[in-house]
Amino acid sequence: MNNPILDFRSDTVTKPTPGMLEAMMMAKVGDDVFGEDETVIALERKLAATFNMEAGLFCPSGTMTNQIGIKCFTQPMDEVICDQTAHVYRYEIGGIAYHSAASVRLLYGERGILTPELIEPEINEDNIHYPNSSLVVLENTVNKGGGSCYTLAQIAPIHHLCNIKGLKLHLDGARIFNALVATGDKAIDYGQYFDGISVCLSKGLGAPVGSVLLGSKETIKKARKIRKAFGGGMRQAGFLAAAGIYALDHHVVRLKEDHDHAKALAEALAKSKYVKSVMRVETNIVVFEVGTGQAQKIVHHFKEKGLLCNTTSANTIRLVTHLNLTPAMIDRAIEIILHL
Amino acid sequence: MNNPILDFRSDTVTKPTPGMLEAMMMAKVGDDVFGEDETVIALERKLAATFNMEAGLFCPSGTMTNQIGIKCFTQPMDEVICDQTAHVYRYEIGGIAYHSAASVRLLYGERGILTPELIEPEINEDNIHYPNSSLVVLENTVNKGGGSCYTLAQIAPIHHLCNIKGLKLHLDGARIFNALVATGDKAIDYGQYFDGISVCLSKGLGAPVGSVLLGSKETIKKARKIRKAFGGGMRQAGFLAAAGIYALDHHVVRLKEDHDHAKALAEALAKSKYVKSVMRVETNIVVFEVGTGQAQKIVHHFKEKGLLCNTTSANTIRLVTHLNLTPAMIDRAIEIILHL
Amino acid sequence: MNNPILDFRSDTVTKPTPGMLEAMMMAKVGDDVFGEDETVIALERKLAATFNMEAGLFCPSGTMTNQIGIKCFTQPMDEVICDQTAHVYRYEIGGIAYHSAASVRLLYGERGILTPELIEPEINEDNIHYPNSSLVVLENTVNKGGGSCYTLAQIAPIHHLCNIKGLKLHLDGARIFNALVATGDKAIDYGQYFDGISVCLSKGLGAPVGSVLLGSKETIKKARKIRKAFGGGMRQAGFLAAAGIYALDHHVVRLKEDHDHAKALAEALAKSKYVKSVMRVETNIVVFEVGTGQAQKIVHHFKEKGLLCNTTSANTIRLVTHLNLTPAMIDRAIEIILHL
Amino acid sequence: MNNPILDFRSDTVTKPTPGMLEAMMMAKVGDDVFGEDETVIALERKLAATFNMEAGLFCPSGTMTNQIGIKCFTQPMDEVICDQTAHVYRYEIGGIAYHSAASVRLLYGERGILTPELIEPEINEDNIHYPNSSLVVLENTVNKGGGSCYTLAQIAPIHHLCNIKGLKLHLDGARIFNALVATGDKAIDYGQYFDGISVCLSKGLGAPVGSVLLGSKETIKKARKIRKAFGGGMRQAGFLAAAGIYALDHHVVRLKEDHDHAKALAEALAKSKYVKSVMRVETNIVVFEVGTGQAQKIVHHFKEKGLLCNTTSANTIRLVTHLNLTPAMIDRAIEIILHL
Repeated sequence: MNNPILDFRSDTVTKPTPGMLEAMMMAKVGDDVFGEDETVIALERKLAATFNMEAGLFCPSGTMTNQIGIKCFTQPMDEVICDQTAHVYRYEIGGIAYHSAASVRLLYGERGILTPELIEPEINEDNIHYPNSSLVVLENTVNKGGGSCYTLAQIAPIHHLCNIKGLKLHLDGARIFNALVATGDKAIDYGQYFDGISVCLSKGLGAPVGSVLLGSKETIKKARKIRKAFGGGMRQAGFLAAAGIYALDHHVVRLKEDHDHAKALAEALAKSKYVKSVMRVETNIVVFEVGTGQAQKIVHHFKEKGLLCNTTSANTIRLVTHLNLTPAMIDRAIEIILHL
Repeated sequence: MNNPILDFRSDTVTKPTPGMLEAMMMAKVGDDVFGEDETVIALERKLAATFNMEAGLFCPSGTMTNQIGIKCFTQPMDEVICDQTAHVYRYEIGGIAYHSAASVRLLYGERGILTPELIEPEINEDNIHYPNSSLVVLENTVNKGGGSCYTLAQIAPIHHLCNIKGLKLHLDGARIFNALVATGDKAIDYGQYFDGISVCLSKGLGAPVGSVLLGSKETIKKARKIRKAFGGGMRQAGFLAAAGIYALDHHVVRLKEDHDHAKALAEALAKSKYVKSVMRVETNIVVFEVGTGQAQKIVHHFKEKGLLCNTTSANTIRLVTHLNLTPAMIDRAIEIILHL
Repeated sequence: MNNPILDFRSDTVTKPTPGMLEAMMMAKVGDDVFGEDETVIALERKLAATFNMEAGLFCPSGTMTNQIGIKCFTQPMDEVICDQTAHVYRYEIGGIAYHSAASVRLLYGERGILTPELIEPEINEDNIHYPNSSLVVLENTVNKGGGSCYTLAQIAPIHHLCNIKGLKLHLDGARIFNALVATGDKAIDYGQYFDGISVCLSKGLGAPVGSVLLGSKETIKKARKIRKAFGGGMRQAGFLAAAGIYALDHHVVRLKEDHDHAKALAEALAKSKYVKSVMRVETNIVVFEVGTGQAQKIVHHFKEKGLLCNTTSANTIRLVTHLNLTPAMIDRAIEIILHL
Repeated sequence: MNNPILDFRSDTVTKPTPGMLEAMMMAKVGDDVFGEDETVIALERKLAATFNMEAGLFCPSGTMTNQIGIKCFTQPMDEVICDQTAHVYRYEIGGIAYHSAASVRLLYGERGILTPELIEPEINEDNIHYPNSSLVVLENTVNKGGGSCYTLAQIAPIHHLCNIKGLKLHLDGARIFNALVATGDKAIDYGQYFDGISVCLSKGLGAPVGSVLLGSKETIKKARKIRKAFGGGMRQAGFLAAAGIYALDHHVVRLKEDHDHAKALAEALAKSKYVKSVMRVETNIVVFEVGTGQAQKIVHHFKEKGLLCNTTSANTIRLVTHLNLTPAMIDRAIEIILHL
């Protein structure tokens, strides 16, 4: 078959566009461990300014920016409050326990979206038996929530609660730009609500490698040391940072296209007999339900037709749209979906 | 008032009986860090034999025996599966994360009682994103479950699942003798099902201090080193161990009395207007529900009448019976309950 | 043979005197986890007052008081400065790394005694490659230094340096009363120099179990929570605390006797042909050198004659005097030494 | 001044050559977290084959490959034996304690070079007071030893000792190719001696970012999971790996040039009055001694003349040669040295 593979497994699989590749090749680099890579510095400053935070730190992955953030905001024997679907809890190999020696309090938000009402009763009182509740982590968009979004109007009261109770608030913004595009909120308004924000460049934005942790100057100074401990200090990292800058300049607005594609796929799925239900599409993730125990088989059938995707449970499947999937490819995917 | 205080806050508040005190005073002691305290050795052997395990280790608390057990059976980046009410998760200051750098997977059992059906889907597959599921912890009786019990018939299939899947099984037996008395199961039948059992001497059994961790010789050798690291190696600990031996000889059968007392209290509570519901009493714990936000106030009223107890939430209260509460004191407590 | 065993292995092997045992059995106890054991509280207050510190915390061992102290005064990725012979580094199973995730900088003091000149160059500058130097630990007397002592005149400038550089200062006072008796310094003058002091009751003082961590109210509040995490919270611990109070009242002044005994043993050893050298005796520890590879053999010969002691290397042997070794027993030991 | 800056601070400051840059931009990439980046796979296989190890793992830094290696070969409460100058101990923010909860035993090798005679007495016997000695780490070349080298003839007996005693052996090969070029040993002969080897691509080899951990298939499987926990899993990392492959193909043999340059600098320094002594040059590092307290001042004078270097103590200075320093630049540096 001459058709290209349609890879809906994740938005992490994207490869640089020619423009991005050229930006990488032209990057001015230096030894970033010595603080001398001007492209890395430019990226960190650009993103910090975008979110109205004081400083940024470029890291090789979102797992690292999240885990460094959590380490910055906790002490051993503290407790982190997050949704039970949270990436920081589910997909980072228990890093909260491993890196930060912190416990977790897991909530059950609607599609992973927390509220002050859910959080408040789970903040531990001062008692020698309990870990000290010191941090709330939100994820926006929520990966396991099927790309569900917080609006800033939902975030503000959570921040307010944290502020009153003396907890820090960290944002796992692996897909924060998808949330911004979907909600119409402004990045510049985020800084006031969070102590730390992790922004991923290698998902919908299409850069090959990297995430940036944003925070106060003091937090980022601390984070820089922890990054060194994690082995995340890279030498001439400007080649990667250049791709990130390019992505921020060229790949943000176009995320709407991915969202539209996701909606189109969802509509096709809703019409398909083997699909029991489709989760409401908010951004670039489509999750749909099939018959009990059927998910693996259906993924396999899709694969035979050139469409790659993953199960998220025995009866749910996830599709993720991204910038390497063109309108024509979406059309072809819809055809596959409709005629499986 | 001439009436003695009726302390139903916990079965940890008991003070030694004259017989126990005499046993303590007569104890032959030695330096247990050098393995030379014969009374400690006798206690460890006695309890190991009772549960058909190879060896035992005397520690200053049940938190220590539990946390050492968990450390013995996990590696950093592993995951421990337990009920979300489990003492090891809720009341040990996040020790699973702190001591063992392990994550938790929290289940919702009926009154804290887990089943293979609940556990199996939560065992992680081999994937670099997931912690390695290596240990299941059961609690018998379940403190937060209101003293609910596992029977061995319920434990056997959980052990079977763990065995097949390569997980270890640890028992938090803080109140295991209450469970044995309530279910009629035999201690001797427990050894085959567990890799580690923590038995507490200072709760219903009435010893002043101490718990014993039971396991294979190899496990206990490892545990002995970890105990030293925790600072749990005590010198002439035989004074405490003697109380444990006395408790095992004299205070096990009488637990039925505590259970009967708990049932009598529950009946009185069920008749009281300020009580919305009483959890079924299985052992020596009575949990009852009052009006929303009333628990603290009612505890205060009880206290004014000389009955001490604790809330377990804004609308639930817990009473625990134990060997320092005589039939006459229970009668008096019932009177207080009925005429609050 | 009718002669009793002469046990010079350690001052931890002592058994309670009849007076101490009586004090233990008369103790008023309560649930110390609930803060209700009045004997424990009395011991903590008595020792805090003795050393002019704000508060105290009773723990089952000196390893626990040391490791909790270190945890109170460090964060993960910090560095602890101590002598390379320090008990906290050598004999606590790497607890500095395990409990506190802190690195060590090891100095070579004369018989384990540090000076500001040794410490200052080893304090790390602020650099992302280096752990943060946050704590100095002194040991008084130094066990591996053969019972060598710091005077307060030596401690004051170390405290001054720590103060200037922002480091905390912790004292492993496992044998602090031996140091006080030997130097003539006053306990009351110690509080001003240390952030934490660990005082052991089960060595020269002759109590069966326990150590007390002293510090500010804030430190001890933190320490109390960490003790709970370590599993060091004991229920009716007053039985043990009573022995500690008795020891403080009756066994401090008499330590001079142990020191005199140690000197007498050293003199006998100095006259013995199989002894190459004897370390100067400062307190209750005698360390002497024998021929290369002879230590184990000589210890064995001593044992055959009823004198127990330990090697500290292939050619050094240690004797420790304590309150269970009477003048008559010392005479007998001297005879054995002289006629080996 | 028209002269370019002569940067002798470290061999980490190199920037890619045009050939390397082209290789990077032509790289075929994929999502390496999914194991789909063929360039990364090619690099890992190439290096594994070079050193006769089974498998490799590409990481963002040498700190990460070292710390993951140490984590693979230790458990909490173990002890790592290394020279007191070791990079893994000195410059990785106490990572041995932080990541692995392991203690250190620090030796004093001649220029950081250990021997079996130094190591053997420091392996702990089995005793509950001691950490378990489980790993020896060698560094080749030794950075703080002034680029000193182990030959394989020196390594073999260390491996033999480890083997007998049940310890693992890890090589911090940050500059292993410098050692190979200097000693004439073959990379292919290394695999038999080490359980893990960390090879750095971003030092003398001139790649912008990255190190590779080599080991058995089982070790690398474990390491891959730990890398994910550390946040070292990168998506389209092939751009960086391509530079590594290029470096291995083009920049190994030329290291001799750097060594010759270092020797030439050393000769010039030896002739200079302000230099008290020059450490024997074995590879690409030159360390020389100046008057007490003069190092900072002399570094400053060099800087004014366009030569950058760092002090390594108050009276020692280090120069590092690398592929961005041409013969003409070395000549100019010699001139500066001779006429400071």
